[in-house]
This record gives sequence, structure tokens and C-alpha cells, in this order.
Amino acid sequence: MPKVVVDVMLKPEILDPQGQAILRALPGLGFDGVTSVRQGKHFELEADTPEQVESIAATLLANPVIEDFTIRLVD
Amino acid sequence: MPKVVVDVMLKPEILDPQGQAILRALPGLGFDGVTSVRQGKHFELEADTPEQVESIAATLLANPVIEDFTIRLVD
Amino acid sequence: MPKVVVDVMLKPEILDPQGQAILRALPGLGFDGVTSVRQGKHFELEADTPEQVESIAATLLANPVIEDFTIRLVD
Amino acid sequence: MPKVVVDVMLKPEILDPQGQAILRALPGLGFDGVTSVRQGKHFELEADTPEQVESIAATLLANPVIEDFTIRLVD
Repeated sequence: MPKVVVDVMLKPEILDPQGQAILRALPGLGFDGVTSVRQGKHFELEADTPEQVESIAATLLANPVIEDFTIRLVD
Repeated sequence: MPKVVVDVMLKPEILDPQGQAILRALPGLGFDGVTSVRQGKHFELEADTPEQVESIAATLLANPVIEDFTIRLVD
Repeated sequence: MPKVVVDVMLKPEILDPQGQAILRALPGLGFDGVTSVRQGKHFELEADTPEQVESIAATLLANPVIEDFTIRLVD
Repeated sequence: MPKVVVDVMLKPEILDPQGQAILRALPGLGFDGVTSVRQGKHFELEADTPEQVESIAATLLANPVIEDFTIRLVD
């Protein structure tokens, strides 16, 4: 059955405090080369109707007012 | 700067109630072809040291006891 | 050490698709009396400086543009 | 309508990397008195059947194998 991946991120102009926390924790752990971290949600669906996934994403997975999403057909 | 994506999912044998809720909500919205939904976390990092990202993922992004993660270099 | 609880919710006017998914899944499981579900984040901090927690919440736990937070001192 | 709050936390023995990231980010922001941070999920339900919420929590809100939950009737 086709597997579909939906990644949901806050829109770029919206501050992501969870990502900020990770970014700020890194130097103290000895990780120095990271300049940006943003956190989102990741969904994996098995769907024999992958063309429905865009509607599903816009309805139940993301809030399009504050979030962007991308869809990838994996196999 | 290279962009690295880390996706974190509960291990397959661990029940994911958030994914179950989405799966069970779909028929009532007219979406009938989905047989599985699992929800995880998605991180996007900009790092000039992408080789560090595996350690970062295992330390701050995922709990390897209950979660698996995958790393992709995007550009 | 004092324990401080911070609950973070999307502002009421912002649609919460995760809560919607749960709400819509309930009737199919035989749960009929729920009219609203909203999902947020919950943090438990041990802090000998509980007065700092409001600043911490506004900086690292919530995005005040899209989220509200409440703070409770538990013990 | 009664409002019910469900808080879901990873069991205490399970490492919480999101909480760790916040904890480790705090000193660099000038917050020095916090010794522990753990992150969970927070749900607010309006339900005229609050006695159903325990079953709902165990089915759709938490995975009881790895998470604990608490239920509070707010009003």
C-alpha cells in the first residue's frame, strides 16, 4: 500500500520556541555548528488513495493559518 | 548551509494514540482509503557540521529507547 | 523544591486540528458526550526560583503570538 | 458544561529529550534555579459525561505503556 509522508512546520515567520530551546541547548553539549533548529510534526499514512492526503493534511494534520505542510509519496 | 532533516517516530511496536485518533476520525470526514496513521516529530536543522546531527538526534531529539529516527541531508 | 506546572494552549480563536481529530474519533469509539477537545503542551519544572517561570514560559515554552499559557505552583 | 483536563506525561523512568533540551537551554538565557523540566501533553475537554474521560484518556490521549495521565474536573 502506498505510504505517504506529511511534514507540518510552523510558517517561517512564526517563532518556534521548541526549536529555540534545542538550538540553545546545543553549545553546552559540545555541538557548535548548528545555526537553526525548527521543530514540526511528521505523519506517516498508508493510503490506497494518496490523492486524498492533501485534503486530510489541510483538515486534520495542519492548521493552514499558522502552519505549512509538505506531502511526499514514499513507496 | 546544509539543511538536515530528522524524523522521529515511536518504535513500530509502541502504540501511538495520536495517530489512532487521526485514523479513526477519517471515515467520518469522508476519507475512506487510509489504513494506518502514525504521528512523529520532524526537525529541520541548518548545520555546517551535518556529521554531528546523529549525536544531536540521539541526545536531544529522540529517546532511542522508545523512538527511532532517520536523518536526511536535504541540500 | 517547588514544582511549577505550565500549560500552553493555542489561543482560543486558532483552530487546533489535533484536538479536532480526537473529537471526531470519539463517537466511533462509543464516547458520545464530548463537545470540545483541545490539545496543548504541559510542562513540569522543579525550580527554586518559581518567579522566573513566567519569563521562561514566554521565552522557551510558548509562542505568545499564537499561544496562551497558565502557571500553577503545585507544591 | 463540565470541563475536564487531562495531563499526559512520559513515565518518570523514561527519558524526555524535549524537557532536557529546555533544561539545558535555561542557563544560557540567565535562568539558573531550575533543576528539572519535563514536557507532556495537555488536553481540555468539554464533556457532559466526565466519567467517560478516563476511558478516553487511556484509549486516545495516552499510551499507558509509556505514559501516565491525570484527570482533573475544572468546573
